[in-house]
Amino acid sequence: MTPEKRLEELGIELPPPPAPLGAYVPVLKTGNLLFLSGILPVREGRLIKAGKLGAGIDEQEGFMLARAAAVNALAVVKGHLGELGSVKRCLKLTGYVACVPGFTGQAAVLNGASELLVQVLGDAGRHVRAAVGVAALPMDSPLEIEFIFEVVQS
Amino acid sequence: MTPEKRLEELGIELPPPPAPLGAYVPVLKTGNLLFLSGILPVREGRLIKAGKLGAGIDEQEGFMLARAAAVNALAVVKGHLGELGSVKRCLKLTGYVACVPGFTGQAAVLNGASELLVQVLGDAGRHVRAAVGVAALPMDSPLEIEFIFEVVQS
Amino acid sequence: MTPEKRLEELGIELPPPPAPLGAYVPVLKTGNLLFLSGILPVREGRLIKAGKLGAGIDEQEGFMLARAAAVNALAVVKGHLGELGSVKRCLKLTGYVACVPGFTGQAAVLNGASELLVQVLGDAGRHVRAAVGVAALPMDSPLEIEFIFEVVQS
Repeated sequence: MTPEKRLEELGIELPPPPAPLGAYVPVLKTGNLLFLSGILPVREGRLIKAGKLGAGIDEQEGFMLARAAAVNALAVVKGHLGELGSVKRCLKLTGYVACVPGFTGQAAVLNGASELLVQVLGDAGRHVRAAVGVAALPMDSPLEIEFIFEVVQS
Repeated sequence: MTPEKRLEELGIELPPPPAPLGAYVPVLKTGNLLFLSGILPVREGRLIKAGKLGAGIDEQEGFMLARAAAVNALAVVKGHLGELGSVKRCLKLTGYVACVPGFTGQAAVLNGASELLVQVLGDAGRHVRAAVGVAALPMDSPLEIEFIFEVVQS
Repeated sequence: MTPEKRLEELGIELPPPPAPLGAYVPVLKTGNLLFLSGILPVREGRLIKAGKLGAGIDEQEGFMLARAAAVNALAVVKGHLGELGSVKRCLKLTGYVACVPGFTGQAAVLNGASELLVQVLGDAGRHVRAAVGVAALPMDSPLEIEFIFEVVQS
């Protein structure tokens, strides 16, 4: 089953890839690696929800926002590669969770992104990850995720 | 026009590459990728300005400090490669902006680095980027930027 | 002298590699690069010490905790490669230090990891590094370190 078919079964439609917030590009390929710019949980140019974990956004909401960011990442990848089947695997996520100093559930939040990747890409979605809690993010975003994908050699 | 010529036209003289603050090296090359250690806005071993965005340092100053960090990165690259023409492109920036929890202008600050890279390297300066606001940085630096460059195959 | 012999001389026994905290894997290899998930200073599934630098954990303790994280990283690498002699070098560390906003000793803390790598791997342990102070980390960990290693071509 293709990743696109799995997305369909999950009821997920890929949005247009989010636009960069500054003087940079959304994605670059070097060798077999695809580096994405930091992805926010936006839809149609606006954050789905602004704020911080531990101050108005709870772990369950954070999980859904991380999942939305992963969907955006897949939209960027599909826009660049044409089809998600060209992904050999998702290699690495670095997840920044904007939070109050007392919040320690960064891993649970980022599982929203990690689990979606496995649901859509299967074993190719299994990645290494770092999870960090940060003071603040652009646009008051509750999280930002960096992705590195490995693509099938062409 | 060479990057060195563009630097000259911008009135920028590359400083000596900044020295590491600890038990690490400033730059390493693997394959075609050049990884730089985190770069601070220092000149002659001292921060141009210490402090945090949103507490004594405003967005416009932050922009200039990010630009200074990018100049330092180019100094490291030139010191390693001999000439900036050996850069195929700047691949990725991860920018850490030390800030108060209410500051959300990380993207605007890091544009100082991103725009300088395009001014000096042209299209080869266009990179992917993540922008993060953090609690504190070494030496009370207002920002720190990681760079990955891709070099021309030799 | 092999890295394993150096570990023995330092009186360090590699622990079992730490288990992931979420839906991700501890290590992946692409080409000659080995990417590790963020490593915490844990032993037997528990943090050696929880808390933040500048609030209950001082620089010297942080140094020892960073050293413990580097030992964990070597355990992951050895578990994956079979022997540490298959490491060509440690390429890059990104160290996240959970701290109060006034703490600026991130570099001194992370030297605990950097120096251990050089003690065990010799020149192959010399890496590039970024050091960042963050608001909070999973499990209230005082630090988390990302590692990228380069392996000998096989």
